Amino acid sequence: MSCPFEAALADYWGAAPDPGPDPAHDMAHIARVWANVQAIAAEEPAPDMELLRAACVFHDLVSLPKDAPNRSDASRLSAEAARPLARSCGLPEAKLGAMAHAIEAHSFSAGIPPRTREAEILQDADRLDALGAIGIARMFAVSGSLGRALYDPEDPLARARPLDDTAFALDHFETKLLKLPATMRTEAGRRLAETRAAYMRDFLSRLMREIEPG
Amino acid sequence: MSCPFEAALADYWGAAPDPGPDPAHDMAHIARVWANVQAIAAEEPAPDMELLRAACVFHDLVSLPKDAPNRSDASRLSAEAARPLARSCGLPEAKLGAMAHAIEAHSFSAGIPPRTREAEILQDADRLDALGAIGIARMFAVSGSLGRALYDPEDPLARARPLDDTAFALDHFETKLLKLPATMRTEAGRRLAETRAAYMRDFLSRLMREIEPG
Repeated sequence: MSCPFEAALADYWGAAPDPGPDPAHDMAHIARVWANVQAIAAEEPAPDMELLRAACVFHDLVSLPKDAPNRSDASRLSAEAARPLARSCGLPEAKLGAMAHAIEAHSFSAGIPPRTREAEILQDADRLDALGAIGIARMFAVSGSLGRALYDPEDPLARARPLDDTAFALDHFETKLLKLPATMRTEAGRRLAETRAAYMRDFLSRLMREIEPG
Repeated sequence: MSCPFEAALADYWGAAPDPGPDPAHDMAHIARVWANVQAIAAEEPAPDMELLRAACVFHDLVSLPKDAPNRSDASRLSAEAARPLARSCGLPEAKLGAMAHAIEAHSFSAGIPPRTREAEILQDADRLDALGAIGIARMFAVSGSLGRALYDPEDPLARARPLDDTAFALDHFETKLLKLPATMRTEAGRRLAETRAAYMRDFLSRLMREIEPG
């Protein structure tokens, strides 16, 4: 996968003052989200793939650490920064606004409802990458980078305490990840999300058998 | 699970000048290794469980970061530091040497062959914790804490490049983890390791289907 959008992204990330992409939000994440966009778009009536391509490549242009207090601003900042880049890469003027909307609406924490089919597709494609085997890998990598414990050894499944995913990685399954399938806005997105969430539940059962045998 | 050994460990870790346990080597790791020790010991002719308990609780007493150049010394340093602690907790003098041997021989990187059944059991129990669902969780948490990428997007399975687990988390499956079952020294350890390695191969297949669909 190579395109002018990606070259512009690499330049931007290379020169950015912020810490740059983490292991969950790097070029590989963009490649996966693009694969998800294509899988979802294949079942939709003629979405604008050029716009989706630009929105996908630039959706995490400005990356803020998972624990940054202004993290919910990242998608708005990305949308803003993406306009001049997409313009210089030749995205038609008329599509810049819709691209920026898809970028700002993709984020979970920004809470901006998508108003176009393309924005819905990008949001679903990005959320899919938080699920399944890749979702498991990303979640533990991010929690490790933040120095969080894998789980609470006294109560791994939080049966008798409030969930706290700032302390325990495993709690993130319940606080966020396993809720994502219900937020999907496309047919294909929801179907794929449910399959991936089922796999995560299997992983969780197996993990529990390993850590609390007998 | 609570015992004088564990209280001594908590005191030691609390006062230690080193950075202390990482998410893969904390009290929860010790609880899992102890569960593995019990599962393996149940199929062995009367291993010394008191000695095993002390060796298990103290096996990561001195923790060095995964990327420390002297990491292979950690098990020797732990064995040394464990002697006075185990003595003060009441482990009989005659068992201190065998406990220290089991601790120094448990480590992959130290390369010290276990000379007793207890040392073999502890080594297998510790390696089991690097496999299965918990092995996946630990591996990605540690690689995230070291700032490593999840995988090489150009060649995730290293088909046309040398493996490099200092750059790519996924490479650690092949460089180390999937080789562990062949190093197991007890019947039960090997059987459990093979089941867990098979699960990891399934995870890897699923991950590949997600990241490189079609």
